[in-house]
Formats: sequence, C-alpha cells, structure tokens
Amino acid sequence: MSNGTDVQNTAGYYEDVLPGVEVEIGRHTPSREEIIRFATEWDPQPFHIDEEAGRNSVMGGLSASSCHTYSISSLIYSQSEAKLHTAAMLGLQMKFPAPVRPDEELTLFEICDRKRVSASRPGFGVISSRTTMRNARGEDVMVMESNFLVRCRP
Amino acid sequence: MSNGTDVQNTAGYYEDVLPGVEVEIGRHTPSREEIIRFATEWDPQPFHIDEEAGRNSVMGGLSASSCHTYSISSLIYSQSEAKLHTAAMLGLQMKFPAPVRPDEELTLFEICDRKRVSASRPGFGVISSRTTMRNARGEDVMVMESNFLVRCRP
Repeated sequence: MSNGTDVQNTAGYYEDVLPGVEVEIGRHTPSREEIIRFATEWDPQPFHIDEEAGRNSVMGGLSASSCHTYSISSLIYSQSEAKLHTAAMLGLQMKFPAPVRPDEELTLFEICDRKRVSASRPGFGVISSRTTMRNARGEDVMVMESNFLVRCRP
Repeated sequence: MSNGTDVQNTAGYYEDVLPGVEVEIGRHTPSREEIIRFATEWDPQPFHIDEEAGRNSVMGGLSASSCHTYSISSLIYSQSEAKLHTAAMLGLQMKFPAPVRPDEELTLFEICDRKRVSASRPGFGVISSRTTMRNARGEDVMVMESNFLVRCRP
C-alpha cells in the first residue's frame, strides 16, 4: 500500500481554489452489486438490498443508501485532478432529491462559494463549497454544502 | 440473504416515536483494519489510511473518514431495537467535533426533536431527530440533525 503521501502529490492548495467557478470533478456508475454490498454492510434496509422491497418502497426501485451516496461523492473526488490537500471535514449539509439507481452514471460537480484563511490554524484555509451529484437524466441525487480545512501552499 | 422484510419486523412506526426522549441506540468499535479498509475504498486520504500520515495531520493520529463515521451511525441504528420503518432520508446536517480513532468504542444517542404527519405522502410521517455519536472519553465525534420519512402504523 502507498504511504499515502504520493496520492496527494498532485493535489492543489488553498491558493489554487477559485471561488464561483463550477468544476466537473468526475464520474462513477454504481453497479447493483455495489449498492447491495454497501447497504448489506452498513445500512441493510430492505429497499437498499432487495429489488422487490425497492419496488414496493417510496423510492419505487432499488436505491443506494445515503451513506453510499456520500461515499461515492468522496470516491469521485479522491480520483480527481481537482482534489486538494484537504485536512479535515468540518461540517456539511446534504439533501437527496432523487434516488441513486443501479447502473446509472453519476457526475459530480463542485463550486467554491467562499474561502477564508483559518484564524485558529495558521497555514490552513476554510473552503465552503457546494457539491452536486447528478444522474444521466439530469436529476440531482445529492446536493451538499460543506466546510473543510485545506492546506495553504507551503 | 434475507429478503429484507424480516429485518424490519420488529421496527417501530411513526406513532411509536416519543419526542424529547433521548435513547441510547447502540455501540460499535471500529478497528484499525476497518478504518483503513473503508477509507482505502471510498476516501483514501493519507490521514485515513496511514498511521504516520495521521500523526502528522491536524487530526494528530489515524482517524476514520467522515463517510465511514456516518456509515457507523447507520450500522448501529440498523442493529438497534429502536429502529423504525424508515422510508427515506430527506436531508441532514453533520458536524465532526472530534476524530474517530481505531479501537475506541462509539455510542450512538438519538432524540426526536419534532414529528409531523406528511402532508404530501399519506401514511407517512416526518421525524426530525438529533443523533450524537460519542467516544469512550465522552467526546462527541458526530452530531447530526436529520429529517427522515417513517411509515405510520398500518
């Protein structure tokens, strides 16, 4: 396994973030197997692990757990060239306007709403961003506003 | 695999929720292996997968991903006798005041702040709850406010 340092070598710093510019971060298509496997381990509600229970649910079909949906956004981000030297997730708000379905491609978009140098942690800044994950039909499946700590350029 | 229906047979309904009463939902202790395995798949930042990178981070040691932390709260809930016939997670806010460390037992507490019958979905109610996950030293590692849809008693 990597020691973790290499992974971040291409990551950006606080100074590289341009507020107000929406960026396409990347894509991921969760398979049926992935949705069921994740939910079986972490959120085994019937409509996340069983096709028929999904059809009979308010979701109207098998759908991914909200934990999985959030994790997918993290996975896409981690594989992106737009990723930053993040240091900590401080807090977030999430909504899930539409269900995540098996074999539907999801695209993650991010826009920095504001940024500020951290008063309490020299060498770090706080990024406030809005992240949207959208399916191929143009429906938002996750809308997240988050605040996270990012390293300033050394 | 269960068809998912059995899992919910002991779950409560909207009418069973008592606002204002904090309940201990359950406990989970994430191992070092679990923290590294989850982060390697979904959030491979150095401080989530490498001990030394953790020590050199603002977290001061290896810590669980926020995706993993949220998933742990879901896992504890799913194994609890306090679980409900939930139908959908509508939205949530989370903060992570302290890091989740390997081999530290986490306890999940939940209190319903308010509940209301759904106007748009007959047969369902909306629960607004505050969920707190605390480590053995009494530090909150996750504070979540969420709104979710729950079935009314048939």
